[in-house]
Parts: sequence; structure tokens; C-alpha cells
Amino acid sequence: MRSSIAWAVIASTICVQQVACATVDRIEYNAAPPNLSHLFNSSLFYTWRPRSHVLPPNGQIGDPCSPDLVRYTDVSTDPTFIRSGGINDPVAVFDGSVIPYGINGTPTLLYTSVSYLPIQWTIPYTKGSETQSLAVTYDGGKNFTKLNEGPVIPGPPFPVTNVTGFRDPYVFQSPQLDRTANSTPGIWYTVISGGIRGEGPSQFLFRQYDADYRDWEFLGQWWHGAANSSWGDGTWAGRWGFNFEVGNVFTLNDEGYSNSTDAEFFTTLGAEWSEVPIIPQVSQFREMLWASGNVSSSSNGSVHFEPTMAGKLDFGVFAYAAAGKLLPATSQASKHSGTTVDRFIIYLWLTNDNFGTSAFPTLQQGWSSTLTTVRELSRGTMANVKNDYLVAGPASWRVASQDKSASTVDLVTLNQTIAREVRAAFVSNATRTITEPGRTISTSASGYGNASANSLNFAQSPSSKFFMLTTTLHFPTAARNATDLKAGLRILSSEYESTSIYYQFANESLIIDRSNSSAAAATTPGILSNNEAGRLRLFNIASGSANGSSSIESLALTIVVDNSVVEVYANDRFVLSTWVWSWYDQSTEISFLHEGSTAVRFDDVVVYEGLVDAWPSRP
Amino acid sequence: MRSSIAWAVIASTICVQQVACATVDRIEYNAAPPNLSHLFNSSLFYTWRPRSHVLPPNGQIGDPCSPDLVRYTDVSTDPTFIRSGGINDPVAVFDGSVIPYGINGTPTLLYTSVSYLPIQWTIPYTKGSETQSLAVTYDGGKNFTKLNEGPVIPGPPFPVTNVTGFRDPYVFQSPQLDRTANSTPGIWYTVISGGIRGEGPSQFLFRQYDADYRDWEFLGQWWHGAANSSWGDGTWAGRWGFNFEVGNVFTLNDEGYSNSTDAEFFTTLGAEWSEVPIIPQVSQFREMLWASGNVSSSSNGSVHFEPTMAGKLDFGVFAYAAAGKLLPATSQASKHSGTTVDRFIIYLWLTNDNFGTSAFPTLQQGWSSTLTTVRELSRGTMANVKNDYLVAGPASWRVASQDKSASTVDLVTLNQTIAREVRAAFVSNATRTITEPGRTISTSASGYGNASANSLNFAQSPSSKFFMLTTTLHFPTAARNATDLKAGLRILSSEYESTSIYYQFANESLIIDRSNSSAAAATTPGILSNNEAGRLRLFNIASGSANGSSSIESLALTIVVDNSVVEVYANDRFVLSTWVWSWYDQSTEISFLHEGSTAVRFDDVVVYEGLVDAWPSRP
Repeated sequence: MRSSIAWAVIASTICVQQVACATVDRIEYNAAPPNLSHLFNSSLFYTWRPRSHVLPPNGQIGDPCSPDLVRYTDVSTDPTFIRSGGINDPVAVFDGSVIPYGINGTPTLLYTSVSYLPIQWTIPYTKGSETQSLAVTYDGGKNFTKLNEGPVIPGPPFPVTNVTGFRDPYVFQSPQLDRTANSTPGIWYTVISGGIRGEGPSQFLFRQYDADYRDWEFLGQWWHGAANSSWGDGTWAGRWGFNFEVGNVFTLNDEGYSNSTDAEFFTTLGAEWSEVPIIPQVSQFREMLWASGNVSSSSNGSVHFEPTMAGKLDFGVFAYAAAGKLLPATSQASKHSGTTVDRFIIYLWLTNDNFGTSAFPTLQQGWSSTLTTVRELSRGTMANVKNDYLVAGPASWRVASQDKSASTVDLVTLNQTIAREVRAAFVSNATRTITEPGRTISTSASGYGNASANSLNFAQSPSSKFFMLTTTLHFPTAARNATDLKAGLRILSSEYESTSIYYQFANESLIIDRSNSSAAAATTPGILSNNEAGRLRLFNIASGSANGSSSIESLALTIVVDNSVVEVYANDRFVLSTWVWSWYDQSTEISFLHEGSTAVRFDDVVVYEGLVDAWPSRP
Repeated sequence: MRSSIAWAVIASTICVQQVACATVDRIEYNAAPPNLSHLFNSSLFYTWRPRSHVLPPNGQIGDPCSPDLVRYTDVSTDPTFIRSGGINDPVAVFDGSVIPYGINGTPTLLYTSVSYLPIQWTIPYTKGSETQSLAVTYDGGKNFTKLNEGPVIPGPPFPVTNVTGFRDPYVFQSPQLDRTANSTPGIWYTVISGGIRGEGPSQFLFRQYDADYRDWEFLGQWWHGAANSSWGDGTWAGRWGFNFEVGNVFTLNDEGYSNSTDAEFFTTLGAEWSEVPIIPQVSQFREMLWASGNVSSSSNGSVHFEPTMAGKLDFGVFAYAAAGKLLPATSQASKHSGTTVDRFIIYLWLTNDNFGTSAFPTLQQGWSSTLTTVRELSRGTMANVKNDYLVAGPASWRVASQDKSASTVDLVTLNQTIAREVRAAFVSNATRTITEPGRTISTSASGYGNASANSLNFAQSPSSKFFMLTTTLHFPTAARNATDLKAGLRILSSEYESTSIYYQFANESLIIDRSNSSAAAATTPGILSNNEAGRLRLFNIASGSANGSSSIESLALTIVVDNSVVEVYANDRFVLSTWVWSWYDQSTEISFLHEGSTAVRFDDVVVYEGLVDAWPSRP
């Protein structure tokens, strides 16, 4: 189902290799797609456009403004609040972050001002190409005015100037860090992401030095990874790679953002790397990671971060550049929703053209990329986990406590959930709520009825491609070693297309099989059909009985389908966001997916159809 | 006498207050001048233009190129070898200096790249306004190509960023400093001039860090003066002021430039200051100073310069921004002149419009300012000086050795002499050499003949305003306390104008009295007529006899008159350069000047008329 506005594009000319051209009156979503890259610009504007996600009216993703995390308004017709071309940034403006009450109490942006391009970890670094400069806003963020002064951080401090990158300043306050670094309470810090050529990726830590944020004191590379190293064997947190980007730093406890003494340091970061041979100007991989750890200071005043656990903030290969922010309990959104705790919320950038390198028909679509659904982060606990071989790290969890008599441990990790306001709105705003009866499925089970050997259609499927689906899967103990088991759901399905989302114990992975996701993949370059996958360990949970028995942790899935955006959340600690460019209007069916000889029970299956229009004021 | 080319300007319109205008066919130098600021542009081009000095074909002083220090050629029609407008220097280019065999063996300019204006020690400093960048030349210096990278020194190192200035990088090598700072032998250093707001002026020392001069290691403020402090009571070296500029650093021994262990560190520097109340954007005074001292290193690796003596490199208030350079014995000029020692040569900038602030008729002149005659610097010795009250410092000399039995000391100071090739050329190239008989002059002496009470015309005066005059004055012991004594010369004299150059013991000063120098001063703003003065102490020199008697040191004067440029050199350790804008053609007479009751003997009086055309290839 597409918006009627889509039909404003009533005639598209399809040209094949500039030889044969045909004019079509309208795009048919009930027939096989043409090569979409030959359509008129913006003719696909609404085809795959999400409804509840944050993205600008057109073009690239820009700046949203929301009172409640659910609905947004465009603050100006031109969503660009800062442009390159100044003395400090003649060629580009990279990421920054805002001190809410900065210079003279005004919101103050610390951003990367760029003087020379190209910049990439794969090529020699041009000294001075990335500096950090200030801008302030006098109109609530619609525009930022650059300060009439040079960069406040003119480069990585001597002698570590031969960097792979030095950008994306993230500003934050931290009473914990104030104590560790013996700072004036309430001072601002900034972490700048990059790395040292030949040595590896780094986060550079600076501290505010004066009231005008004119000078920043270097506190050291508070975190440095060896070049192309990984956390453990890389199973749980990919590679640190060669260069860090977009680092955020914050402290979490079980409730959310916290400055209390029980809170721990977390950082989110982008890691860039390639397989050898490294090709200049090609960064083959970007991974959006997180880490938590301990912070200490040296006698020379430098501060060090030592990870204790690390993982992927999102397993989707096109989910990157997470930007997080403290959302205090006193904020408009929190007060509106009755949230009484401080939160750390985060958005990721979801690129639909592989960071600008794929042949996706962007011109035909007329917009590019989106932000993911906003998430809340907290420290999560997995309690009563059997202290068996599955617990061993380094991993994306650590042992918080141990009960030797029960042979159990409590594990902690990073929890990520859809922001409570958004989740609540998806439920309360649903135009239709479909409850599919729970069932146990095995290849031999009668429940399959007339369905095919490995699938079972929902009794009711949504009529659109906008919905949130929740369900919980329960596995028998035998599932642990059931190498043939796959269990999950098929979504966005029709006789022509379908996307499979399933967990398999064989490699402890949650997989989104996109090989049959889009009929357009057959006609159009850039409609990618490769699998997306992420690693999720389901632990053995002690039963509580005296005999030491345990059961496999259940798999609680939440799947948000916002037209082409598919986000899979699992057990509050796993997220995989990706694109599914289904073509046919009728590709809205959902079915259970099961393969293998071990039975799986699906419970609490609900589909909330409709989502929320994030941009009610847009035409 | 003016060049005949001057008469190409045959008609000038004189407008008085835009009411009465009259056209004159030619400028008459045998009649009183009109208000020159109402003449056509460039109508005064040749009126005051020097012959043997370094200045561009027209406009502001630029870049000369000379094989022999005497004659110069223009290397290109546009004498500008670097312009602002690049990424690092969008608004201005300030001073720099060249590493002769720099990047890839190419001459490499390290210069101040300017991003924000205004910049002055009297106003708050805009961070990042002055950075240091590199440019290289591929055509022997006609043009310098900026490197495609950011500043190699992006600013004063944290936390001393609240500066009064940070500019004019002077590059040098120094085996002595290599030893003191434990450096790789042959490494390059740069000293950057400026100061710290509220604390005082500084020279910032940096050391080359890599083969491409991309990074420079900060070795500390190797020299820092308290704000507005002076050397001793300020008698001999003015004030350190609030901000340093154009610092040069080099080592000298008695022969000239030297790396031998007996050589000492010298620095030349510009000092900026004002009387209170300090008016924003007005630097009232600029002084061109020198200092010599000892260099040591601290345990933390920083290097310190501690002055032992200091003085004025030139007492002329418009002589500033000295730029010096090592001229090795292997250089073309030295080989040509048979000079077998390494030399340190230096030019000063002589502004004729008070650093752009006076009303001098620059447009009518069509050119502005010049460089002074090039000088050689060395460490000089004043031997057998009576160790009396005159020796006490701090001063522009220091005691090098003491002979207690003879009650004498040997003093050392900075020696400055006209570069030997230039002096030799002035002698050998003279179109007329006038030898005036030596004589003793006192008010009662018969030698006065028919001359007026306090002057005595030379038997022969030059017929032009281009000459070098040398003479030595001998004073009786009684002169030391003769408060009414003035002895010297009148030059550029006629019945309408004259300039008095004389020494007086009353304040140990050598004075250029310009109050009657120019008839144009009466008609034209900016033709300044204030006195110039410098301090010179004539010591008591032991006679060598057993009774401990002594005589006053003689005063050896060399006066270079190059049309309007007048440079007075005394005893190889005093220079005063200024402008004398005489108007009348006949103002070429010279006379002895004597006032007071004490007789003075003038010996060895020679006038070498003609000088040398420094620009033989110019039309």
C-alpha cells in the first residue's frame, strides 16, 4: 500500500541502455518491476518510504526536532543547520555535538571543520584536514552561526599527529570522570574519534579549559586499540579495525543514564577496516560497536578506558554513526510520558546506498537513508544464568556476580529497547491489532495443517507494510545441539517475494535472509539481496529447582517493519536494522518459519499494524 | 640632483582644499615646495628615491635578489612571491623564513598564515588567527607554492593559547642548541615571536620533528619577558614591551657567524608597547632590539635563553622588522669578495609613513619604504676600557674579562658594520672622493674663519645627495662633563634646509636634528621633522701608561646619505637609520658642527660621492 501522493508521478520513461525507451503511465506494484534506475527522479519517492522513522522531507537525512520522540516537525524549510564554506571549514562539515547551555548560555555546537579532502584511514592523512570548531545557535537550532575564531582544537596534539582520523567530537559531562581526572565538577569533556597510523584506532579525550570553550586540555588517548585487533576472537564485537568514528561516551546503570556510583562507562563507536590488501580510499567495513569498561587515571594525568565487555550496537551492515544524547527526566518528552529516570537515547544512521557506494536508484527515490527508531540504552542483567561454557568471555557480557552453590551467574550487558514512548505509540496507535494464536511447531506436528513443510501462514496478516510484530520463541533443551534448526518468521511475503527472519543455534545467529526479498533485485542494481546476520547467545537459565536443571533462554523478538525498514530486536540486547525493498503490493503476508527436527513454541504473537506518522505536519 | 627621468612628470595639478587648483609644468626643486599631497600620483617618484638601497620598482618593499650584496636584479615583473587567499591564509600572509634545502631538497618557506584579522597585542587575540604553514619554490624563489596541507604549527601549544601574537617563524640550525637540547645534529629550529596576554612578550622555540617539516616539537618559551619590562632601566635597550615580533636567532663570534664553541647566542627582535592608557588597535611604539645571552635546558626538556646584554639594533624609530640570514663563506657573494668567514647579514625595513599611519604623500611618491643598507653582525670587543662607573650594566655590553692590576676590562657587544662588499663599492665606485682636512674646532679657535659661530662649511661639498661620509672625532677628557658640548656635522644643507647630526655627552646621545631638514615639512603633512636620537656611551680607554691615565674613546662616524635615506653608523656598534626629506636641489652642503666651550678634533674626513646604483637593470 502506497500513499496516494505517489501517483503524482504518473509518467515515467524507462530507458534500457539508452536504446529502447518506453513511457509508462504509472508504476505498477502488482506487476514485475522494471529496472528502477531508469525511472524519472523521485518516481519511487513513496515506494519504500518509512512512516514512523526520522528522515527529512527529501534528500539526505538531516535534523529532526521532536517533543515526544514519536512525532517530529521540520523546523525550517531548509533542514541544513550548518554548511561548509567558512574559514575553518572551507570544504566540509563533519559530525559534532551540542553543549545545551554553552557560550553565554547558548546551545553550542562543537563540530569537525574540514579544510582538506579526501580523508580516509586508507590513505595518508593531510595534516590539518580535520579540526574542531564552535558554532552557536540563536534560533533554537534552526541555524548555527560559526564563531569568528579558529578551531578550538586545531588538531591531535603533538606528537601523535600522524593520524588516520580526528573527528566527530562528542561532548559530555561526567561526575565520575570529574573524580577520576580530578576535574572541576561539571566541566565538559569531548571525545574525538580517530586513530594513529600504523598503531590503531583511538578515542582522544579532551577537557574544557575555559568558560568560552576556546581551549581544550588533552587528557590522552583514553582508549586505543591495536591496529585491526578485535575484542577476543571478534565473535561478539567485530573488529576494532584501523580507525574509530562517531564515538559517544556516557554512563549507565540498570535504569538508564546515571551519574550514580553504580553506573558504568559505556561508549558507542564506529570502527573502520578492510581485508588485506587494503585498497586506498576504500573502507570495506564499518561496524557500529559498543563497549563498556573501567576508567582510571595515570600519575601524569592521562585517563584510560579499559573495556570489560563489547558488542555490536547494531548488526546491520548499513546501520552506523550512532548519535546519542542524555534525555533527562526533566525533559519535555520524559515529562510528557511520565518517565522519571534520566535516559540515554540513541539514533543510528541507516544508509540505503552502502555509504554512497552502491548503485541504489537514489535519484529515482528522491530521498536517501533514514535514522533508525530511537532506542533507550541501559545496563541490562541476565539473571540466574548457568555458569557453563556459554558464559566465557571476552564477550558482549561480563559476569556481575556468581552464586557458587547454585552454579549460576548474573551477567550484565548493554540493553537496547525501543524508546518507551515510541513502543507505546506503536501499540496505542495501531489501526489493527492482530493476535495470532501461539503454537508449537515441529516438522511432524499436526499444527502445520496445509502449510508447506517449513512455513505456516498467519491466520491474519497485515494489509500494509507498516507494523510492529512481537513474539517469544521457546526452545527445548535439545535445540542447543539441533544443527538443522531454524525458527522465526517470514514477513513481507507474497508468491513473488518474502523475507525470512530466523534464529539458528548452529552458529548462534539471527539471520535476515533477503535473497528473495525484492522482485526489483532482479531488474535494478543496488537492490541488495545478501543476508544480514547477527550473533545472539541464548544462555542456559537455571530452573530454580534443586537438581540444578536449566532451560534455554527464550527468544523475545520485536520486529518493526516500516515499509522498507526492518528492525529486529531480540531479548533487549540485540538489534539488527536493515532494508527490505519488497516490490509487490500484496507482499504483506506473515508466516511462521520452522526448519529442522526440533519443535519450537511461538507465544504471544501480536502484530500492531499502522505504526505512527512521525511527520504529521508534512503534506 | 634628480634623475632626468623624474621630469617625465611634467604637469602636476595642485589643489588646495579642493577650491583653488593650479597646473604646474614641472616640480621646481629650486623653489619652495607646494603641498605635496596634492600632486598627481608618482609625481615625487624620484624626489627622494635612494640609489644604493634595496626597494622594489614601485610600491611597497618586496623581494630582492643579489649576487654580491651590492647590485640587485628583479627576478620577476611581479615581485610578490606569495599571496594570501589559500585555505590556511584566507586573509593575510605574514613574515616567514626559508630552509634552503627543505622538503625534497627544495627551498621551503615557513611563514605565518593568517585566518582572522585584526591582530594586535592591544586587542583580544582571536584563536587560530595566526598559524605557521609551508610553501616551496620550484623556480628559485620567484614564486612559492603552498603545500596542500594544514598549518604545520597550528597555534601556540596548550595551555599558553591566550597570546598577544604568534608569528614570524625564523628557521635556523645550531650545533650549540643541538647539544643543549639533546637534538639530532643538524635539525632545524624555529623561533616564533609573540607574547602571553597579561604576562609579557615571548619567543616560542620549536624543533623540527620529521623529514617533511610537518610537525614541530615545542621546546618552551625559550625567552619570556615580564609585560612592559625593560633591560635594566631601559636606557640601552628600550622596553621589552608587550609583544615580540620578527625574532631572529643566531650565534656570533668575533669574526661573524660561527658554530664554534666560543660563539654566543644573539637574537634580534621587534618589541611592541604603548604608554598607558593603552588604546585598542594602536601600538604606539615599536623598537628594533637585539639581545645576547646564555642558553640552557631544563630537566623537562625545555630550553631557556637568559640575556646577558641587550641593545637597539637601530635607534631610528622607523627602522624595524630586521631580517637576517646566514651568508656562508661558500656563498656566491662571499667567494666573489674573497670573504673567507661565515657571516650573518641583516636588513631592516625602513618605513617612511610610520608603519602606514602617517600622512606621508605616498601616492605622490609612488613607492613606499626601503630596506636599510645590508649589515654584517659580529661580536665586538672594546679593549682596555677603564673599569669605572661607565662600565656598569645591565647595558648593551658585558664584561668579558678584567685586568685588576690595570683596572681595565674588555667589554663585548654586538658589532654592526656595513657589509664589506657594499662599503668597498661605495669607496671604489665613488665618482668623486672629497678629503676634507682634519681640524680641531672650539668656539675660540681661529679655524672657524668666517663661518658662523657654530659651523664651518667643508671646503668641498658633494654636488649630489648620494654619498658616504666618514670621520673620527676625538674628545679631550674635559668633554665628559662638558654639558654644553655638541659636535658633529651638518648635511643636506642650504640656506633653506639642513640636518644636524651630532653627539653630546650631556645625555650620551647621537642626535639627528630634523627640525630644519625639509622645506616640504611646512607645506605637506607626513614630512616629519622630529628629532631622531640614539644612546652611545664613549668609554674611557686606558692610555697604557703606568699612571692609570685614560682618554675618551673616539667617535668614528660613517654617514650614508642615499638621497632621503640617512644612516649613521658609530664605532661599529651604533646605527641610526632615518629619512631626511630635503627639498632644494642645492641642499647638498656639508659643514662641521660644534657648540660648546670644549674643543673637538675631526680627523680622517672623507666623502665618497656617488654610491652605487643597486638596480643597474632597471630603466
